[in-house]
Amino acid sequence: MSRQITKMKNRSGLAPGTLLHIGSQKTTDTDISSFNYNLDVLQETALNSEKDIMPFFSSDTVSWINITGLHDVELFSKLGDLLKIHPLILEDILDTSQKPKMDIYEKHLFILLKMISWDNIAKSIKFEQVSFLIFDNCLISFQEIKGDVFDKVRQRLRNKNSRIRRLGVDYLLYSLLDAIVDNYFLLLFNLGEEIENMEDSLINTPEKDILANIYSTKRDILALRKSTWHLRPVITNLYQDDFKIITPEVSRFLKDLQDNTSQVIDTIETYRENISGLVDIHLSNTNNRMNQIMKVLTIFAAIFIPLTFVAGVYGMNFKYMPELSQKWAYTVWWLVSILITASMLIFFKKKKWL
Amino acid sequence: MSRQITKMKNRSGLAPGTLLHIGSQKTTDTDISSFNYNLDVLQETALNSEKDIMPFFSSDTVSWINITGLHDVELFSKLGDLLKIHPLILEDILDTSQKPKMDIYEKHLFILLKMISWDNIAKSIKFEQVSFLIFDNCLISFQEIKGDVFDKVRQRLRNKNSRIRRLGVDYLLYSLLDAIVDNYFLLLFNLGEEIENMEDSLINTPEKDILANIYSTKRDILALRKSTWHLRPVITNLYQDDFKIITPEVSRFLKDLQDNTSQVIDTIETYRENISGLVDIHLSNTNNRMNQIMKVLTIFAAIFIPLTFVAGVYGMNFKYMPELSQKWAYTVWWLVSILITASMLIFFKKKKWL
Amino acid sequence: MSRQITKMKNRSGLAPGTLLHIGSQKTTDTDISSFNYNLDVLQETALNSEKDIMPFFSSDTVSWINITGLHDVELFSKLGDLLKIHPLILEDILDTSQKPKMDIYEKHLFILLKMISWDNIAKSIKFEQVSFLIFDNCLISFQEIKGDVFDKVRQRLRNKNSRIRRLGVDYLLYSLLDAIVDNYFLLLFNLGEEIENMEDSLINTPEKDILANIYSTKRDILALRKSTWHLRPVITNLYQDDFKIITPEVSRFLKDLQDNTSQVIDTIETYRENISGLVDIHLSNTNNRMNQIMKVLTIFAAIFIPLTFVAGVYGMNFKYMPELSQKWAYTVWWLVSILITASMLIFFKKKKWL
Amino acid sequence: MSRQITKMKNRSGLAPGTLLHIGSQKTTDTDISSFNYNLDVLQETALNSEKDIMPFFSSDTVSWINITGLHDVELFSKLGDLLKIHPLILEDILDTSQKPKMDIYEKHLFILLKMISWDNIAKSIKFEQVSFLIFDNCLISFQEIKGDVFDKVRQRLRNKNSRIRRLGVDYLLYSLLDAIVDNYFLLLFNLGEEIENMEDSLINTPEKDILANIYSTKRDILALRKSTWHLRPVITNLYQDDFKIITPEVSRFLKDLQDNTSQVIDTIETYRENISGLVDIHLSNTNNRMNQIMKVLTIFAAIFIPLTFVAGVYGMNFKYMPELSQKWAYTVWWLVSILITASMLIFFKKKKWL
Amino acid sequence: MSRQITKMKNRSGLAPGTLLHIGSQKTTDTDISSFNYNLDVLQETALNSEKDIMPFFSSDTVSWINITGLHDVELFSKLGDLLKIHPLILEDILDTSQKPKMDIYEKHLFILLKMISWDNIAKSIKFEQVSFLIFDNCLISFQEIKGDVFDKVRQRLRNKNSRIRRLGVDYLLYSLLDAIVDNYFLLLFNLGEEIENMEDSLINTPEKDILANIYSTKRDILALRKSTWHLRPVITNLYQDDFKIITPEVSRFLKDLQDNTSQVIDTIETYRENISGLVDIHLSNTNNRMNQIMKVLTIFAAIFIPLTFVAGVYGMNFKYMPELSQKWAYTVWWLVSILITASMLIFFKKKKWL
Repeated sequence: MSRQITKMKNRSGLAPGTLLHIGSQKTTDTDISSFNYNLDVLQETALNSEKDIMPFFSSDTVSWINITGLHDVELFSKLGDLLKIHPLILEDILDTSQKPKMDIYEKHLFILLKMISWDNIAKSIKFEQVSFLIFDNCLISFQEIKGDVFDKVRQRLRNKNSRIRRLGVDYLLYSLLDAIVDNYFLLLFNLGEEIENMEDSLINTPEKDILANIYSTKRDILALRKSTWHLRPVITNLYQDDFKIITPEVSRFLKDLQDNTSQVIDTIETYRENISGLVDIHLSNTNNRMNQIMKVLTIFAAIFIPLTFVAGVYGMNFKYMPELSQKWAYTVWWLVSILITASMLIFFKKKKWL
Repeated sequence: MSRQITKMKNRSGLAPGTLLHIGSQKTTDTDISSFNYNLDVLQETALNSEKDIMPFFSSDTVSWINITGLHDVELFSKLGDLLKIHPLILEDILDTSQKPKMDIYEKHLFILLKMISWDNIAKSIKFEQVSFLIFDNCLISFQEIKGDVFDKVRQRLRNKNSRIRRLGVDYLLYSLLDAIVDNYFLLLFNLGEEIENMEDSLINTPEKDILANIYSTKRDILALRKSTWHLRPVITNLYQDDFKIITPEVSRFLKDLQDNTSQVIDTIETYRENISGLVDIHLSNTNNRMNQIMKVLTIFAAIFIPLTFVAGVYGMNFKYMPELSQKWAYTVWWLVSILITASMLIFFKKKKWL
Repeated sequence: MSRQITKMKNRSGLAPGTLLHIGSQKTTDTDISSFNYNLDVLQETALNSEKDIMPFFSSDTVSWINITGLHDVELFSKLGDLLKIHPLILEDILDTSQKPKMDIYEKHLFILLKMISWDNIAKSIKFEQVSFLIFDNCLISFQEIKGDVFDKVRQRLRNKNSRIRRLGVDYLLYSLLDAIVDNYFLLLFNLGEEIENMEDSLINTPEKDILANIYSTKRDILALRKSTWHLRPVITNLYQDDFKIITPEVSRFLKDLQDNTSQVIDTIETYRENISGLVDIHLSNTNNRMNQIMKVLTIFAAIFIPLTFVAGVYGMNFKYMPELSQKWAYTVWWLVSILITASMLIFFKKKKWL
Repeated sequence: MSRQITKMKNRSGLAPGTLLHIGSQKTTDTDISSFNYNLDVLQETALNSEKDIMPFFSSDTVSWINITGLHDVELFSKLGDLLKIHPLILEDILDTSQKPKMDIYEKHLFILLKMISWDNIAKSIKFEQVSFLIFDNCLISFQEIKGDVFDKVRQRLRNKNSRIRRLGVDYLLYSLLDAIVDNYFLLLFNLGEEIENMEDSLINTPEKDILANIYSTKRDILALRKSTWHLRPVITNLYQDDFKIITPEVSRFLKDLQDNTSQVIDTIETYRENISGLVDIHLSNTNNRMNQIMKVLTIFAAIFIPLTFVAGVYGMNFKYMPELSQKWAYTVWWLVSILITASMLIFFKKKKWL
Repeated sequence: MSRQITKMKNRSGLAPGTLLHIGSQKTTDTDISSFNYNLDVLQETALNSEKDIMPFFSSDTVSWINITGLHDVELFSKLGDLLKIHPLILEDILDTSQKPKMDIYEKHLFILLKMISWDNIAKSIKFEQVSFLIFDNCLISFQEIKGDVFDKVRQRLRNKNSRIRRLGVDYLLYSLLDAIVDNYFLLLFNLGEEIENMEDSLINTPEKDILANIYSTKRDILALRKSTWHLRPVITNLYQDDFKIITPEVSRFLKDLQDNTSQVIDTIETYRENISGLVDIHLSNTNNRMNQIMKVLTIFAAIFIPLTFVAGVYGMNFKYMPELSQKWAYTVWWLVSILITASMLIFFKKKKWL
């Protein structure tokens, strides 16, 4: 939520298409790295400036250019001019409060989505925005901060016999999307464990109030759901629409990816049901604890209040109370008291309160 | 709600198309201002009468005429005759209880929507109705009261190098719509803060009953949702339908605006979920407080009622109570009492009530 | 609901198309009145028999024939024969348990809907069924009882300069529908006030159990919703389908009417949300009251039960209780008691129970 | 539910299309009766064997053959061979756990639905499966047990002037469907009364726990809903699809029947809302009763615990308690006690607990 | 859920299409068995290697090859090469965390679904993944572990006169699907009994907290629902799309199967409603028990607290208490006490608390 708010505060009133980086302002430099490959050749270089990108477009190899760091607005402005990118796209790349979407332009596709990771310390989800510009033989990816989920893709690129080296830019796109969705499963795993932990503590340490915890997890689930929900139509469009860039062979893989995305959504829905079950169990626990407390109170009161009365009777100072002077009276009194107590205990035993 | 009620009371039974201003009757004059511009020229004038509008229609520049104040029914009637506007449109412009909508007429588009602001004193949303009549090279906007969210648009108009000066009346329309939707984000910011405040006071000052507060915020959210919900199809129609007036270039911008509107709706849905979570937490808090109260009662009762009984026993006046005459009896009695109290405390400690 | 039950009891097993009046059997006569008009002429007459209707069909003026009272089955049977109306239509007109619908026949349209009014004494909604048969230049309306919402339409008919005199039978139909929908707003006003009253009494006189009241209002809202919900597609069909009878000019007005109907439904949905909010507040109030009660109990118990114990101690009859014979003991006892009380009060003050 | 379970136990693993009667095994014989009619002639006969059906197919009159009793699997197998009925249809006819459906075959339509009746003793719904095979001039109906809702249809058949004698097998089908749907209204009447009774007992005898009752009615409503919900598309298909067998004249009647079915569903939805309202009221009643109980307890405790303390004070045996020896002390004590009691009562009066 | 987690842990980062068995690693060998049949011949053989499958493809009989055990990745890799199966299909066959789906390839259909069984000891559902590869005259099925629901299909295959021997591979497919869906009914039976048991224990042994039990059953129902929900479109596609492989005759049977699947879903929905009814009843039971406890407490307190006060009065040591010295006083005191008790009992009797 906080990012949208930041956006609104910063953007409000700017001309549309004005470039403005919205997100955490990292001081690290902008990194540009490139993979340039076909079945035979693999060239892995770090680029110095946006101008170094241009040669890749005229080459007949496939190129993946990865740009990390979004704060250098100047660079993106020049890049936009070089590649003739629409200002609205640049605006979206820099504004990290966007929801997943795909825009189709004449010369390229634009895809924007969320890379998700689990912050083990804060026990909550971290979102990072990733966007892709897909040209005929070139894919440019944009990330906010260093560290991503693409290392396995890079390893496969370096392996000469891998499918990725044989196929074109569309399979590269699929591999990157696949790496991101794979990571969603990792997140589901963490969320699932979190839910199981909460279930356990509901049963084992019922006194602790874990409702706030439950709702924070619920909010994480909803955020993940929103992100995945918007991702699904993007992937569907990719393999259903008739893009020149997507070959039928890769289309199959994208359909498979779509199935995975659906599975993420299914699991999220299941988690939501589980969470609302936890809330019900919590409510029921609270009520049961109340019942427990009231039973203790009632048992104490029901046993000792009559006894206190009986003791009170013989504490009265009436002149003429014949029982008081009998020798056996005190013993009898105790017997009666014990009888009352016993019958009370049997009564509560029968009611299954003990 | 109150406006609809007012409407119904005033309108009920009038012939359809009868002009009637429905809204707060301001005594201020009706203001007509105009921007007349193209890439080279900018002319900013205040007009005296509705007749001064006519020349703009035959000019080849783009014109934005803004009319503030809806109470002068006479003026609108004349304007309607001059521009051949359908009586139902005039009726809608003046009736500020309408929901966002778009009507397509032969000579112009008619768009009606809500400008929203946050009343910091009443801590609630204020709605103001804005309508647009879009002709080939001329846009007329109608507002209820002075003060709007369009100042940034005016500034951009005055800047010779801005995109707005280069493009036509469709980009002007987009800019105005964009300014309004931008303001929705500002509102979401305020609502989000309000919700966070309520969350804090739920945790920190649980005694205060904030349910009424929660429901008033929920009502605000629902009102905002209704307004945005109806706004979305209006914008979708604008860029999807084949209007001569909307150029493909501006169409891109409108699609971007549509994405923003979707984001507003997404955020509203999230807020709704948060609100219903707050209600659950509130309920759970009430139950927990009850448990707390009952525990205090039960602990006091369970400790002192048995003790009182034991005290009552030795307050009895039986003649033959051997313990009474023993010298050590009183001390023993105290020891027993302390023992009872201690075992009670251990019992409650084990039950984690202490 | 009761009408449907009546229907089922009376109709069950009758041949379809058998004429049977279902509704309250009024003893008043059946009234037939007519308006016969064009731009120049207006003729307002009461008719004696169904045969008097026939001349209107061959005239080139527009005619509105209004029939009040549905119990004279004989008359409707004759009317059906005269005008060649399908028996199912006649059955629907007389059976006042129908839901709003439109049927298209070769020679005429059939529209059936509900006129709604607010019974101020019973504080609930009254439904009256109205049906329209629309021929090329003639509209016949059927009502159950005297008194309707059409008086404003009649006044406009009598005004020579009104739009209604200039346009055809389609605008007459629109005017009548508009009058009915206008009345829905009046009802919403009453329901809205009812809800506000309930909200007030929830806050001000929380002891009164207003849940039954809330649910009766909810039932009214649901009934109104059902009626409006079915009315909407009828109006949509009217202006979207290509009926010869509906001119484009009137189509505009019908679209406007459709907007109003949508607004009624929107408001109803808002009311439903408000109502369910009221139920939550009621539940929370009950819980809060319980908390209040328990606090009072706990405070009394926690203060006086220990004091009673302390008093009980010195009511014991042990021979050797050194305190008893000290002169200052009684005073000290009182001081201790006051101390206990004070510390309890501070404890509860800290817990914010006081 | 129980029937589906029976089905599963009996059928599981049988080859599809194997004939097996699933339902209560009645020992009564299978009855075959026939109506054979046109405008002039009516012939009503009981048939001895399935072979007697064949002549009707070559006659130019309309025939209705009704078969009651589904346990004689042999007979249905022969019938299937004679009329060339698909094994899956025969399986469906005999398996009384089916949901309403329509299947279209080359030579005939197959319609299966539920006849519903109200068991006044068990206060719940009884379902009986009815299926129709509609040939060009012949309709065969299948019922489980004797007794149906078709007697009125039979009476109309015997009446020479009725519409049913004039029209074909499609109107016969409509009449039978109409008789069944008419009976649904009767059921709604009983359910409605049941709900009103529960509402009354909620208000008048709040102690009785009627929740189980509410949920049993809710289950009835859901069963009825499921049945009607599946019936609706069957009827819709009948009049919307282009069946040779359905004439336009009868199509009108089917559309009317469709309206009735919608009304049944509407009413069921209303009942569902009412039922969930009852659950809320029940919950609120339980809470209110708890409040009532706690008030009684608190009032007793708050009045008598302080008094007991005051009595305890003067039961102490301190040597020096100056009050004890004053003559007026006892009277003053009583006055103080009454004062305490009175102020408590005023306090509770103010809190509106009395 | 656990399987998806396993998947994610194992798969994450692998190249798409990499074969990896995900599921419980059984040490049993992989079994390959085959049925090879037409109307005249039936040949039932156990195969030794994947190469033995090839001859079946060139034969003009129908073949069903069943492969049990998914851990031998090597075998599947070779099988994929032999039959030219897409790597993504092989990946899906081995990854037992998939949801039901159908993929259409040029040479074959691929169907994946869940075989469900009821684990009577764990009282929960076991899922086993089954996949089908359907070629023109050959069907290959893949199962995880030994033991399936297909024995009845095998018996029918061995019966020379059965329909399955007469028809092609499409009817074989239908028979296998039908056997699986039949088994779903068996599961519903067990779940239904489980729900009824829980209902009984809610009524008969209300003290036991069965909420955890309810939620575990609910989770089973949701899992079953997800599986069936995804199965439905698979079957719908089979008979609606125009597959060369599916003959019209078998299409009828598939439509019937679809009806059964819908019935499973209907029953599941009913069970869900029942479950949520159980939760409400459980909540109401807890509240009622609380009411019961509070009544016991209040009755004891209300009877004995006043009595104890009255006893306390005459335990006071005032010098001048005239009643104390009256002979009749003690008897009167007892009479008053009994009177108080009796009136209390009548009061509670009237309130229906006894």
